[in-house]
Amino acid sequence: MKKLQEKWLPGLLLLAAAIILLWSGPLAADEGMWTLDNMPLKQLKEKYGFEPTPAWLEHIRLASVRVGDGGSGSFVSPNGLVLTNHHVALGQLQKVSSAQKNYVADGFYAATSADELPCPDLELNVLISMENVTAKVLAAVKKGMDPVKALEAKKAAIAEIERLSLKKTGLRSDVVSLYQGGEYWLYRYKKYTEVKLVFAPEQQAAFYGGDPDNFTYPRHDLDMALFRAYEKGKPVQVAHYLKWSAQGAADGELVFIPGHPGSTNRLMTLAQLRFQREFAYPLRLKVMKRMLEVIKKYGARGPEEMRQAAGMIFGIENGLKASSGEYDGMMAPGFMKKKAAAEAEFRKLINENPQWQAEYADAWKQIAGAIEKLKPRQKEFSFRRVPGQRLGGIALQIVQLVAELQKPDGKRLDGYHTSQLDSLRFRLFSPAPIYPGMEEVMIVDTLKQMIEELGGNDPYVKACLDGRTPEEAAKALLAGTKLADPAVRKALVDGGDKAVAASTDSFIVLARKLDPMVREMRKWQEDEIESVTRPAGEKIGQARFAAYGKNAYPDATFTLRVSYGTVKGYPMNGTLAPSKTTFYGLFDRAFSFDNKFPFNLPRRIADARERIDLATPLNFVCTGDIIGGNSGSPVVNAAGEVVGLVFDGNIESFVGRFFYDDTANRTVSVHSAAIIEAMKKIYGAEKLAQEILGQK
Amino acid sequence: MKKLQEKWLPGLLLLAAAIILLWSGPLAADEGMWTLDNMPLKQLKEKYGFEPTPAWLEHIRLASVRVGDGGSGSFVSPNGLVLTNHHVALGQLQKVSSAQKNYVADGFYAATSADELPCPDLELNVLISMENVTAKVLAAVKKGMDPVKALEAKKAAIAEIERLSLKKTGLRSDVVSLYQGGEYWLYRYKKYTEVKLVFAPEQQAAFYGGDPDNFTYPRHDLDMALFRAYEKGKPVQVAHYLKWSAQGAADGELVFIPGHPGSTNRLMTLAQLRFQREFAYPLRLKVMKRMLEVIKKYGARGPEEMRQAAGMIFGIENGLKASSGEYDGMMAPGFMKKKAAAEAEFRKLINENPQWQAEYADAWKQIAGAIEKLKPRQKEFSFRRVPGQRLGGIALQIVQLVAELQKPDGKRLDGYHTSQLDSLRFRLFSPAPIYPGMEEVMIVDTLKQMIEELGGNDPYVKACLDGRTPEEAAKALLAGTKLADPAVRKALVDGGDKAVAASTDSFIVLARKLDPMVREMRKWQEDEIESVTRPAGEKIGQARFAAYGKNAYPDATFTLRVSYGTVKGYPMNGTLAPSKTTFYGLFDRAFSFDNKFPFNLPRRIADARERIDLATPLNFVCTGDIIGGNSGSPVVNAAGEVVGLVFDGNIESFVGRFFYDDTANRTVSVHSAAIIEAMKKIYGAEKLAQEILGQK
Repeated sequence: MKKLQEKWLPGLLLLAAAIILLWSGPLAADEGMWTLDNMPLKQLKEKYGFEPTPAWLEHIRLASVRVGDGGSGSFVSPNGLVLTNHHVALGQLQKVSSAQKNYVADGFYAATSADELPCPDLELNVLISMENVTAKVLAAVKKGMDPVKALEAKKAAIAEIERLSLKKTGLRSDVVSLYQGGEYWLYRYKKYTEVKLVFAPEQQAAFYGGDPDNFTYPRHDLDMALFRAYEKGKPVQVAHYLKWSAQGAADGELVFIPGHPGSTNRLMTLAQLRFQREFAYPLRLKVMKRMLEVIKKYGARGPEEMRQAAGMIFGIENGLKASSGEYDGMMAPGFMKKKAAAEAEFRKLINENPQWQAEYADAWKQIAGAIEKLKPRQKEFSFRRVPGQRLGGIALQIVQLVAELQKPDGKRLDGYHTSQLDSLRFRLFSPAPIYPGMEEVMIVDTLKQMIEELGGNDPYVKACLDGRTPEEAAKALLAGTKLADPAVRKALVDGGDKAVAASTDSFIVLARKLDPMVREMRKWQEDEIESVTRPAGEKIGQARFAAYGKNAYPDATFTLRVSYGTVKGYPMNGTLAPSKTTFYGLFDRAFSFDNKFPFNLPRRIADARERIDLATPLNFVCTGDIIGGNSGSPVVNAAGEVVGLVFDGNIESFVGRFFYDDTANRTVSVHSAAIIEAMKKIYGAEKLAQEILGQK
Repeated sequence: MKKLQEKWLPGLLLLAAAIILLWSGPLAADEGMWTLDNMPLKQLKEKYGFEPTPAWLEHIRLASVRVGDGGSGSFVSPNGLVLTNHHVALGQLQKVSSAQKNYVADGFYAATSADELPCPDLELNVLISMENVTAKVLAAVKKGMDPVKALEAKKAAIAEIERLSLKKTGLRSDVVSLYQGGEYWLYRYKKYTEVKLVFAPEQQAAFYGGDPDNFTYPRHDLDMALFRAYEKGKPVQVAHYLKWSAQGAADGELVFIPGHPGSTNRLMTLAQLRFQREFAYPLRLKVMKRMLEVIKKYGARGPEEMRQAAGMIFGIENGLKASSGEYDGMMAPGFMKKKAAAEAEFRKLINENPQWQAEYADAWKQIAGAIEKLKPRQKEFSFRRVPGQRLGGIALQIVQLVAELQKPDGKRLDGYHTSQLDSLRFRLFSPAPIYPGMEEVMIVDTLKQMIEELGGNDPYVKACLDGRTPEEAAKALLAGTKLADPAVRKALVDGGDKAVAASTDSFIVLARKLDPMVREMRKWQEDEIESVTRPAGEKIGQARFAAYGKNAYPDATFTLRVSYGTVKGYPMNGTLAPSKTTFYGLFDRAFSFDNKFPFNLPRRIADARERIDLATPLNFVCTGDIIGGNSGSPVVNAAGEVVGLVFDGNIESFVGRFFYDDTANRTVSVHSAAIIEAMKKIYGAEKLAQEILGQK
C-alpha cells in the first residue's frame, strides 16, 4: 500500500471536509484494523487457536515504527535498523540525491556505518503508551454551550492535554479521536529525527513493473529499504525488535500486520458517500490528472529534470490509480445499495429504542445538512491553493507560525500547538533541495487552474496574480524569494512576527496577503461545518457502541493498529492467483515484455541470474486488512518473527476504503526469504543480511 | 479453443433447436472468420499493407486439415505430418491407451515410423474445392409449395448434389449453408482415415494448470500433438505443407489463422437470444454439472476408472467453463441492450425500403413465433436422451441406418445420406474400447434425470425403464448386449433390417422401441419449427446482403475459415498482460503453488530444467477471431510459415460467441519456438523436430 496520496496534493486546502467515520456491526472474516487496547482476542482464538498475550502485543507495539508522514516500519535489529518500503523511503532517497548521484535510480548500500547517509527530514515514531482521555476531553464542553464554543473548548482541552504530557514526559504527545469521537486517547511517542539511510535497491527492482503493475498481483517487487535510527550520533539500541524468519510466510499461515493505516471511509453516512461520489472524487481525479500532466512534461525536459520529478510522478500516479479504483468501486452497481442497507439497519435499531432515538437519531440529518451548506463553497475550498510545489506552503506556514506563537496554546490553529512544534520545525527547516524549475511549472499551472475554476475576479486569485499573467507571477515570485535556503526560513521564524511583517521576500509578501483569506475559510469551516459534523459524528459513534457494543475497530487514523489474516491466493481472471510469486516470475515478466520498460530487468538482477535460487518466494498475499499508510508494515507470524514486508494492495483491494471483502481483496508483501536472497546474492549486502538474521 | 463442447452431450437430442444465425454490419478491427472465396483483402491491405494472393490462399487451404468432429490442424512436413492440439488428440490417446499403457498420462513418441500408433477412428479432411450451388438448391423450391414440402425439397436437392459429387469425384462432398442460407456451397474434401499417432507430451504438460487455467491467460501449455496421415500403409506425400518459423510469433506481427470454427451465435435475433438466456443455457449448465459430478464420482473409484474417465472429465469441465462464461456474458449488464440496438438498426434499414420490407420484414416475427411453439416441448426435447455414454447412441444409429438405407437418398433422415455413409460407418465400427462400468453409471443417471424431469409416465421414459428401477435397467441392458464388439455392430448392419428386427440384443431392442418417438420428435421439429425458421433465416440473410452488401463473414459452421490479427497483449486486472509467456513463467507458476496439482511440473520438464532456455516464448496471444473448433489451427505469418499453434481463447473471449471485441478478447497459442525447444530439450524428439524444421 502506497503512502497516503493526500501528501501529493500539498496545495489543496480542504478537498473533502466534514469526513466523519463510523464502523459497522457484524465483521467479515479477518476484517479490522484493531487498536492494541481492543484486539479481537476471542475471534483469533476461535478461528486460529492463537491468542496474543499482553507481552506479545507490547513487544509488537514497541518494535513497530511510524515512518514520516505516511508510512510504517519496524525495528529488525537491536542496533536500530528499521525496515520499511523503498517507496516510503523514496522521498528521502530523492532528497539525498543530486544531479551527480542518483540513489533512486542506482540504489544505495552502506557497507560500513561510516557510509550510512543522514536523512534531511525523516521522523520516526514509536508508540510508548496509550491512555484513554475521553472523559477529560468531553468535560471541557459545558451544558448549554453553543456548538462553536463547544468545539473551541474541546480543541483547547486537547491541546492542553498534549502540552502537559509533553512537558511531563518529553515524549511526542498526540490526542487521537477514535470511533468518531466515541473515544479520545492520548498516544505518546518516542521520536527519532536522527535517521540514516542504510540500504535501498534501485527503483526498477523496488517498483518493478512501474505504474501498470502498481496495485496489482501477481507481483515481483523488491519494495524494501533500511534506515537506522540514531541518537546523539550513535545507533540506538532497542530492546524490542523483530526477529527474522528466513523461511518466511507459508501458504495458509496466520499472520499479523502491525502498522499505521492512514484513513478509511468505511462507515461514512450515505450523505457523505454521495458527496464523495458526486463532488470530492471527480474533483480530486481532475486535479491529479492535470498535475501529473504538468510534472511529466517537466520531467520530459531532460534527465536531470526527470530525476527531480521522479518521486512526484510516482506519488501522483500512485494516488491517481488508487483514487480511480476507489471511484470505480463507488460507481459499481450495488455499491450504494449495500451501503444504504447497512445504514438503514443501523438507524432502525436506533429508532426502535426511544432513549437512543432521542439521543442519536438526528445526527444523520445534521451531517446531511452540513454537507449541503458546504457545497456552494466547495469549489473555493478546493481551488484556493498555495502556489508552487513547496515554497508557497513554506511561506504560509512561516507567516502563520509567528502569529500563532503569540497566542496561548489552546487558542491556536490546529497544527501550531506546543506539542506539534518540534515536528513542524523539523520539516520546515529541512535542508532538502528545492528545484526552482519544478516550482515554476507548478506555480504557473496552479494559477492557471485557479483562474479557470474561480475566475480572475476572485480576491484570492487576484492577490496571487497581482495584475500579472501566471507566467509573470511565477517568474517574479521565484526571483524575489530566498526561502529555498533553510537558514533564511529559520531567521524569519526566529525573528518572529516583526521579521515576518518586515520581510520583502516575494513568497512571504504573498502569504501575508493570502493568510486572512485562508483563516476565514478555516474558521468558517470550523464554525459552520465541523461544529455540527463533529458532535453528530460523536453521536453516531456512541450510537454504535449502544447498538453493537465495542466488538469493533475504529476507522483508520494513521495510528498504530494490528490487522491479521491468512496467507492465501484468490480467484482471479477465470483462474487462481497463487499465494506467492517467485524470482522465476520476475524473469518471466521481463522476457514476456521483451525486457522493455517498465518491465526491464535491473542490470544487477540480470547479472545475478546464475547466483539467485529462482524458486525463492518473491512476493505473497494475505487477507489482512490494510490501507495506505500500512506501507512498510512488517508481516509477522505467531512467533512474532518477520515473514514479510507489506507494500501494496491488489487491484481488488481499492474498495477496502469503503468496506472489507476477503473474496479477492489482498495485501501484497515482499517475502522475507526474497529480502535475504536479494541482499546476499544480488546486492552483496551479506553483512547487513547477517545483522537482520541475528548472525552478527 | 477447445473442441465443440456439444460432443460431450451425446445423448442430448435437440437441446437448442431452431438456431439461426445472422451477421452484422460494420466490423471491428481484425473481426471475422472468413471463407476463402471472400477474404477481406481490402481491409488487410489498408491496415497491414499485405494482400494474400490466390496462390497464397490456395496453399494455406490445402495445408489445412480438419481433425475429427471438432478440431483443426495442418500439414507441417511433406511426409503427411499433421500438427494439432493435445486436447484434440485426447480422444485418440484415450482410445489407444489401456490399463497397462496410459499415453494420456505418460505421453507418446514414435522414434521410428514403425513405432507410430494406428488411431482407431480419426478422420482428417482437406478442403479440395468449393463451389457455389445456391441456385441449384433454391431451384428445388417451386412457387406455392407449402413450407414442409419446401424444406423436404431443399433437403433432397442437397442430398442429390452431394451424392452426384461423391460419385463423380470420389471425394467427401458436403453442401454447407452459409449466411443462414443466403448461400449454399458444395465443399469437397480429401479424406484420410488411416492416421497414426506420432507424438504427444504428457497431459500435465499439454494441459498445465488444468481446469483452473483453462480458458485463461497468461498460460503455459504445451498443448500439441502430431499425427501422420497414411494411405495404403505409406505416409502420404503432400505438396502443400506449412514451413516452420523457428523464431516464431513476434509482438506486433500480423498473423493468420486457418481453421474450422464450430459455431457462433453472433447474429441471433433477439427472440433467439432470449430463448438461449432463459431456457437453453440454464438447462445446458444444469445437465453438464450433473454429468460432471457423475463421471468424477466414477473416476474416484480407482486409478483405472480415472484413466477411463479422464477424457470425458476434461471435455465436460471444458464445456462447462465455456458455457458458464458465455452465459455470464449474456447476463452481463448491457449485453441485451447492445444486441437490441443492432437489431433495431438493421430492421429500421429494412423497413425504410418498401421492397425490402415486403420481402423480409416478417422474418423476425416468424422466428419468434416458432420459438414460442417450441417452448412447451423443450423439456421433452432436452431430456428424452439415449441412455449411456456410447452404447445407446450406437444402437439407435444401427436401427435407423438399416431403415434409412431402404429409402431413396433424398428421403432419408439427415446423417444417413449416401455421401455421409463412409464417415458414419468409420465411426460406428470403431474398435475403440467401451467401458461397461462407465456406461453403467451414465445409464443410471440419465434414467434418473429423465424420471425427475419428465416423470415416470412419459412413454419414452416408460420404454426405457420397462418397469425396472434405473439401476435394474442399466444392469439388464449391459448384461444383454454385445454391441461393445464392433464386429457385432457390423454384422447387424450387414444383416440389414431383418437382422436388426430379429436381434434380441438388449440395446437394439430398446432402440427399436425408442426410434418411433425419436422420429416423431425430429419430424415435428422439421415440420413445425425448421420449416418456418429456415426460410425466415434465409430471408434475414438476404436482407443483410441487401442492406450491408457482402463485406461480411458467415457465422461459423465447422468449415474452413481464415481469421487474421496482431500478436498483442491487453489490459488485464489493473495492469497489462504481455503478448507472450516464457518457460520461466511455467516454473514460476509451479513453485508459486508449491508444485501442487494441477500446477505441478511434469517430471520430464523438471528434469530438463538446466537444458531448457527458459527465456524461450511458450504461449502467446493475438487478436485473431476464433471459437471452439479452431483448436489445433496453425498460426501463420505473412510468409505462410507456422509461428504458433492455436489452442484456446482467454476468459475474456467467451462473449466471442455473440460478438467480437478486441479490447481483451484474445486467441491463445503455443509458440512455434516452444514446440521445437520442448521436442529437442525435453522429449528427446530431435529427429521429429528436424522433420518439422525441414532439416531432414
